[in-house]
This record gives sequence, structure tokens and C-alpha cells, in this order.
Amino acid sequence: MLQSTLFTKTRKEAPKDEVSKNAQLLIRGGFIHKEMAGVYTLLPLGLRVVNKISHIIREEMDGVGGNEVYMTTLQDPDAWEKTGRWNDDVVDDWFKTSLKGGGALGLGFTHEEPLTKLLKNHINSYKDLPVFPYQIQTKFRNELRAKSGIMRGREFLMKDLYSFTASEEETDAFHEKIKPAYMRIFSRVGIGDRTFMTISSGGSFSKYSTEFQTLSDAGEDTILISEDRKVAINKSDYSDELIKDFGFEGIAFSEEKSIEVGDIYKLGTKYSEAIGLMYKGPDGKEHPVNMGSYGIGVGRLMGTIVESLSDEKGIVWPESIAPFRVHLISLGKNEESTMLYENLQKAGVEVLFDNREVGVGEKLADADLLGIPWRIVVGEKSLMAGGVEMKERNSEESSIVKIDAVLSKLT
Amino acid sequence: MLQSTLFTKTRKEAPKDEVSKNAQLLIRGGFIHKEMAGVYTLLPLGLRVVNKISHIIREEMDGVGGNEVYMTTLQDPDAWEKTGRWNDDVVDDWFKTSLKGGGALGLGFTHEEPLTKLLKNHINSYKDLPVFPYQIQTKFRNELRAKSGIMRGREFLMKDLYSFTASEEETDAFHEKIKPAYMRIFSRVGIGDRTFMTISSGGSFSKYSTEFQTLSDAGEDTILISEDRKVAINKSDYSDELIKDFGFEGIAFSEEKSIEVGDIYKLGTKYSEAIGLMYKGPDGKEHPVNMGSYGIGVGRLMGTIVESLSDEKGIVWPESIAPFRVHLISLGKNEESTMLYENLQKAGVEVLFDNREVGVGEKLADADLLGIPWRIVVGEKSLMAGGVEMKERNSEESSIVKIDAVLSKLT
Repeated sequence: MLQSTLFTKTRKEAPKDEVSKNAQLLIRGGFIHKEMAGVYTLLPLGLRVVNKISHIIREEMDGVGGNEVYMTTLQDPDAWEKTGRWNDDVVDDWFKTSLKGGGALGLGFTHEEPLTKLLKNHINSYKDLPVFPYQIQTKFRNELRAKSGIMRGREFLMKDLYSFTASEEETDAFHEKIKPAYMRIFSRVGIGDRTFMTISSGGSFSKYSTEFQTLSDAGEDTILISEDRKVAINKSDYSDELIKDFGFEGIAFSEEKSIEVGDIYKLGTKYSEAIGLMYKGPDGKEHPVNMGSYGIGVGRLMGTIVESLSDEKGIVWPESIAPFRVHLISLGKNEESTMLYENLQKAGVEVLFDNREVGVGEKLADADLLGIPWRIVVGEKSLMAGGVEMKERNSEESSIVKIDAVLSKLT
Repeated sequence: MLQSTLFTKTRKEAPKDEVSKNAQLLIRGGFIHKEMAGVYTLLPLGLRVVNKISHIIREEMDGVGGNEVYMTTLQDPDAWEKTGRWNDDVVDDWFKTSLKGGGALGLGFTHEEPLTKLLKNHINSYKDLPVFPYQIQTKFRNELRAKSGIMRGREFLMKDLYSFTASEEETDAFHEKIKPAYMRIFSRVGIGDRTFMTISSGGSFSKYSTEFQTLSDAGEDTILISEDRKVAINKSDYSDELIKDFGFEGIAFSEEKSIEVGDIYKLGTKYSEAIGLMYKGPDGKEHPVNMGSYGIGVGRLMGTIVESLSDEKGIVWPESIAPFRVHLISLGKNEESTMLYENLQKAGVEVLFDNREVGVGEKLADADLLGIPWRIVVGEKSLMAGGVEMKERNSEESSIVKIDAVLSKLT
């Protein structure tokens, strides 16, 4: 893409009311726009990153048998009343609205209820199980305060997979399939080395659940990590009982701040019993379907990556999710940069070509801020030295590469 | 995909309260689920179709210089108050909600206002123009009644592109680029032969605008088409003045019912002046940006295709947007079908493999209902005859094809 046709501009300063590093850098780079606290528009560069993260998540969810669906935002109270979650005293962050002809509606903050209800049309027998519908879409929470940029939004993009199985054993078996899929996702988006499967309390459905926590100074959570880093516990759920249950006696833990990027919860039969999602077993009897829920905050994941992988100059995107792979920068007008742009495009390399008529300093500062993995500068100086200047965003060293050799260096 | 892993089931009957053919067939096939009138969940098969339609639209919008963005659903009143559209007497189909800490919000039914406001951060000079942001996402309208299935929803998927140029002449020039792009979209999704660029009234911003109308008995509109079918007029906007303005005197028109699948509107400087989106011209003076709006209802387009391309047995998807290209059906257990499934998958052919243990009649009826372009039946009878039975959904004739020759027949 020609940078001159990208309608967004970078900014030297972030909005004054924006205190989080993730939103400051993403707004300065023109990735997102703040509509109000906790509500951000995705601009072209931000949407490209989110689409790449979503693509990785989709591949892994499809790999464990997921079936993607797209649920509605508008929620009829019916199913929610059956589970008790329509009540504002039970769920205190609903956005509610009403139909013109009368009748209250909610904006979905999650989708267990409508999905459980919908599956009554499709599940009758144990032969119809298990099923694993998932969704990647916007959810809504009426948070009183929203100060963490895209980390805790009022309107935010989530991946939620829900498991529907015949028994708790089958739900457990699925957990063992999805846990490594989650870890692959975090590795593929570039934060595998700092993301830990973390034991936490299980809420009302089971004693324990699993969180995925990424180490970050911007984190709102604190986790305890063992020295060998193979075991992590959410500090707020630490107890002697937990230590005993897991046989962790004698292990030394250190405290770290972290961001919850994903979670796995058992739901048991709470929703299926309330809403009436039953299946006929091999025994000929009706049983409630056993459920589990598996979330990843997609917007939060983007924010976590920015918090984790940035320096004083800007963002450092991993190649897997960068908006472009190459940032090609021409200093002054030259035919070589245009030819290289065309050749890279023909070879299928995603390249942002900074052909703007602005100064060298501005171009290089923008490149650092945008954080595209490979920077290629084509100017009189580099051409005199025999080619183009190539530099990786996360390295200080650049080298002169012959134009013919650029492609092979990238592949 | 194995049909046994698809969690949706087909139904013999549509819900009794569903009067529209598009929703009846899409619900019976398990493409969509009705949450309430005008509000539908996309199930896996429906989401696949919508994603393919969206992909075609994206390619054409990118081709005319579009930059995709993802706007927010939650709308702050600020920009809408400036244009007068926050008022429920002016816009009577807002869904409104409120922030917990106080303050009303709306759910976006369109996005001219927030987009115009956000571009104030990115447009200063005539050098920053033109720009063509677009979005493919869910919009909300609080319709009193919603009876047309996915054709007129309370929550519906739209593509909206907005043009921001320096002058009305540049907006006009863009119209001449986007009109053929729109016609290519309608051709590519299979309804090009029955979709007409139609002259209609221009509302408050210009004398005329352009609609794209698809002939259909389910249509809510009526258009007048010339005998040679090169000219169409929305009947409700017919006037002697229009005939004179376009030099249509003496042309014979016939009446047809139709569905509006897209529209092109000039917005002039109404929004830019109200919200203050100005640019500095080469003359050194400030001018309001000139705007245009270009919509396609993505959900409505899916509904229109179903209304147009179906028969008494079910849907007939065009190959370009079918959820799968091949419906492979094994009658009884046989190794040949499994091997063919694997080979088609390896060759990159999208195939739904009906390996379920149900009767022949049910399998064939489901195949007709789902409407996948190629049906391949593998059974004892076809194998005895020397291969598999291949049939196109829109044809009555089938032929026996050797298993080795299937792939070449598909490509």
C-alpha cells in the first residue's frame, strides 16, 4: 500500500486523557481512534493487526473442532431471565435498550444464554455431541470507569468458544486439547515466552479454572510464578488449600504483574438446566448438556502485545501480526524504490511504501512508531553504497543489501 | 468439513411466524437462527456465505481506493447533535442506551457523523484528499415491524463506503469509478443479470441519486425499466421533470418489483460543515470537505440471492459465494468416498462430506435444501456404474464420472 493513500496520520502526542501506553502508542500511530473512554474505532492499520490476530485464533479454534458463528448484539431477556442474569443486581454492567413497540433488550456482554437456547434446535441425542461453536465479535460492558486503553473496554472484541459435551469427563478431555491450542496462539502472536497458564478460582461451577496471564507492568493482576516458571497461580486465589490440592508444597514463588489474556471456565450444567438443553443418552434418558467457556480478548491481546513489545520509539510488531511486513521508505524521488515496491508486491510481500514528500527525520520516526518488522530505506546514500539499507525494527544494526538480494533476505 | 461435525441440523418446516422465503429457506437449511423479528444469528453455513460476499465486496472497494475501518457501535451524541440527527423526531429508529455514570448513547445506524469527526485528526490540506474509508459491520435500526426476514433487519450487516473529496466534481468522478465496481459485485455474487442501476430522488443533498435494484417478486420497491433494459427509474420518483432531465422522452417503460441492494448518495458539505471537517485549498483558504455515501446491505444481499436463486427444493448458491463448492455424499459406508474427500481437500476444493448415517432420501433432500453447486454421490450403484454420480444443483442431469476424473471436471 502507498502510505500516501493511507488516510491516517501519525501524531507526536497522544490525547492528554489517555493514560495507558497501549492506547497512547496505538493512537499516535493511527491504529485506533478513541470515540470515548473504553470505546475505540479500528483504523486501517489497527484493523489489519486485529484481522491477523483473529486469523491465527480461527486456525487454532478450527483445529480443535470449532465451528464459527456470529451471534447477535441485541439480546431478548427470555433466556437470560431463566438463568437469573437479566437482573441488574446479578449482572451490573449490562447496556440495556428497548424496542420501539415495547420490550427491553440488552446488548450481549457474553453469549452463553442465546447459544444454549439456539442449540435446543440442533441437539437431541448423545450422537449430536460434542459441539464447539465459537465467535469472534464485539461485546459490550457498561463499565463505570475505563482507563486501560483497549485492555478493558466498554465495547471490545472477544473470541469466545463454548463446549457442549455429554459429561464433565468430556469437558475435561476438551480442556486438554484447547490448553495447548491457547498456548500456540500466544506463541504465534509473539508473547508465548511471557504468557503462563495460571491456576485461579473456579467461581460457582468448579473449584479451579485456568487463566492465561502475560507478564506486564501494565497488568491489573498479580501472579505467583515458580522459579522454574512451570507453575503459576493467580495471587488473589492463593490458599493453603490450593497448594495442597496441586501438591505445590515447598515450591518458591515470585510475584509478577500480569494481564489476563485468556481464560477457561467450566460451566457445568447451570445454563443447560435453566434453559432446557437436554440430550437423550445411550441409556434412553434425558440428561443436561455439560458446558465450558473459553475466552480470549482479541483487542486486549493487541493491547498486551503493544505493552510488551514496544520501546521508547514506538511499537515493535511481531511479523505474524504486523500490519505490513516491510516498510519501504524512499528518501527523495528515485526509480529504484518504485521498482522495488512493485517487485515486492508481485512476490506477495505485504509492503507499506512511504512515498510521501516529507523529511527524512519524520519518515524514520514514523517507521519506528508504526513498528513494521523490516525497514528498507532507499536513498541517494544507500544507492551510492550499492543498494538499499535494510534494518529490522527490533535491531539497531542495518546493512546495505543489493536490490536484487532484498527478496531472498526476506524469505 | 465433515457434515457430522457441523452442529446445525436442517428442518422440514420453518418457524410459523416467518413469512419471508429468504428466512424460511435459510432457517430450514441451518444458515441462520432467528433471535427475534429482524435479528438473526449467523450459523456456520450462513457465516461462510456472508464471509464470501464480504470478501468480494472488499476486493472491489479496495480496487477503487477504499481503506477499511471498523467503527464503534456505541455512539456519543456530540457529533450527531451538531448535524441534528440525535433528535428522535428527525431519526425515528435509534436504539438508545445510557452509560452507568450518566449520559445517553446511541447504537450506530450509520456512521457519517463519527467518521467525519475522526477525520478532523487526519485531514488538513487538499493534499490529504481524497480518502475513501469503508466498513463492513453490523448496524442497528429500531424498526417498528420487521417482517422481511434478513432483508430489513433491526440488526443487520452493511458495507458503507464514504468518500471525502475536495469538490463536487471529484465526488462525481468517484461515482463513475464506483458504479462499475458495484455492478461487478452484483455480477460476481450471481445477480448481475437482474440488477439495474436505477435513478431515484436525491434527498436533501442533490436532485438525483443512484440505487441498485434487483428484480424480485419479494421486492418492496417498484422500478420502471426500459424495453432495452438499459435505463431504470424508481417508480416512486418518476416525474415528467426526471424524464426531461435525462432525455427519456418517448421511451416505453415496464413495471417490475425489485429489492434495493445498494445505493449511492451525494452528501455535499452538510456533515463536514456541521462538524467542522475543513481542508486548506491551494488557494490558502479553508473549505468544507465534499462527501458521498455508498451502501450495500450485505445481509440483504444474501437474502436477495436466496429469493432470486432458489427453487421449490431449496437454495441454489452461485459458486462464488456457496458455503462449499462440493457436497460429497456417501450412500452407505465406502472407502471411495473417504478417499475422494481427502483428495478434494488436498486439492484445495471446499467440500462438505455427508458421512452421516441417515437415509438416502434425507441426504438428497438436504443437499437440495443447502444448495451447494456440485453434488457428488458415491454409492454401490454409482461404483457399479464405474464411478461417482455428479450433478450440478441448477441442473436436472447427472452423469457418472470416474473417481480419477472428478477433480478435472471441477477445475
